[in-house]
Amino acid sequence: MKYPKTILNLIECFKKLPGIGEKTAERLALSLLEIDDETIDLFSKSLKDSKTKIRRCINCNNLSEEELCEICKDKSRNKTILCVVEEPKNVMLFEKLNIFDGFYHVLDGLISPIDGINPEDINISSLIERVKKDNVQEVILALKPSIEGETTSLYISKLLEDSNIKISKIAYGIPLGAEMDYVDSLTLEMALENRMDISTNKNS
Amino acid sequence: MKYPKTILNLIECFKKLPGIGEKTAERLALSLLEIDDETIDLFSKSLKDSKTKIRRCINCNNLSEEELCEICKDKSRNKTILCVVEEPKNVMLFEKLNIFDGFYHVLDGLISPIDGINPEDINISSLIERVKKDNVQEVILALKPSIEGETTSLYISKLLEDSNIKISKIAYGIPLGAEMDYVDSLTLEMALENRMDISTNKNS
Repeated sequence: MKYPKTILNLIECFKKLPGIGEKTAERLALSLLEIDDETIDLFSKSLKDSKTKIRRCINCNNLSEEELCEICKDKSRNKTILCVVEEPKNVMLFEKLNIFDGFYHVLDGLISPIDGINPEDINISSLIERVKKDNVQEVILALKPSIEGETTSLYISKLLEDSNIKISKIAYGIPLGAEMDYVDSLTLEMALENRMDISTNKNS
Repeated sequence: MKYPKTILNLIECFKKLPGIGEKTAERLALSLLEIDDETIDLFSKSLKDSKTKIRRCINCNNLSEEELCEICKDKSRNKTILCVVEEPKNVMLFEKLNIFDGFYHVLDGLISPIDGINPEDINISSLIERVKKDNVQEVILALKPSIEGETTSLYISKLLEDSNIKISKIAYGIPLGAEMDYVDSLTLEMALENRMDISTNKNS
């Protein structure tokens, strides 16, 4: 490769990002040459900031630049309801819906003995403390439908079973718009197990 | 969006790159949080360098960090043959083939009166000067098969027609491995026009 060193470095950096191969990295690196100076300055600075400024919220473990994240700082939200998620990016998924006004708790992982991830390796103890301290009324477990997700949900619900708190789990089933033919058998099994009674005749 | 400012900035920067939308930008920005410090430092520095260090080779107009690019500095190459390309990245396409040992000339655009790009807006005069000065024997026009590419090739060949230089153009036709059914009609027309005589019987 006869590119100048700077371009080669940029290609290498882009290649470290998920889903970016040699060709895309090359295209992106070259495209930077045509981008305005302010964007480049902002990009360069933000990259540095990502290592120095970004920290975790001391309350919910979400990404933040201050002690408390934007969500935990918001006094208008409903303190009695807590949504437990795996990663910070899951918080954004729910926030974009604009229908949940409770708080979050980011576990930063799921229990997975095979991978050596035990309950004490993720933020479960801080969740339990928080539930007690903040007088939470409902804990919504919003973890992914996998063995690890299920194990973690079960573990947390066991820990909280003596407290007088409602514990719920988001529904797993067939996604809207899906063709029945293409739904995998595990999802279909889950959908069948989690079927809901919609009978209008109470005697049926 | 409740992301910290730094993450939002990174998302904005990624979105300015070609082919990167909101979702990919978000994924890439978050992925940076998991990348090692050295890569982040290199990335940040290289971005700055892309604006300050990258310049054009004074000889061929290729990307370079010095007066002369890596290729023009290479004394072992064949000075009598010059390959004319549209953009710096085209140079790399040919270099990767490892079969061309001449030099390049980057036009930085193609003649396109509709877009207001005239011959004097691209590096044609420096090409003509170079051809005369360096005693070039063959000029290979390696521009893309489009109206602009053809116009530019024609223009350059006209300018050089009085000099005693071989002027060639890369072959346009059906790409290897292509299914005939899927070849577009313009390509097929070009392939027919540029057909080559392969008869072994000289009298046929």
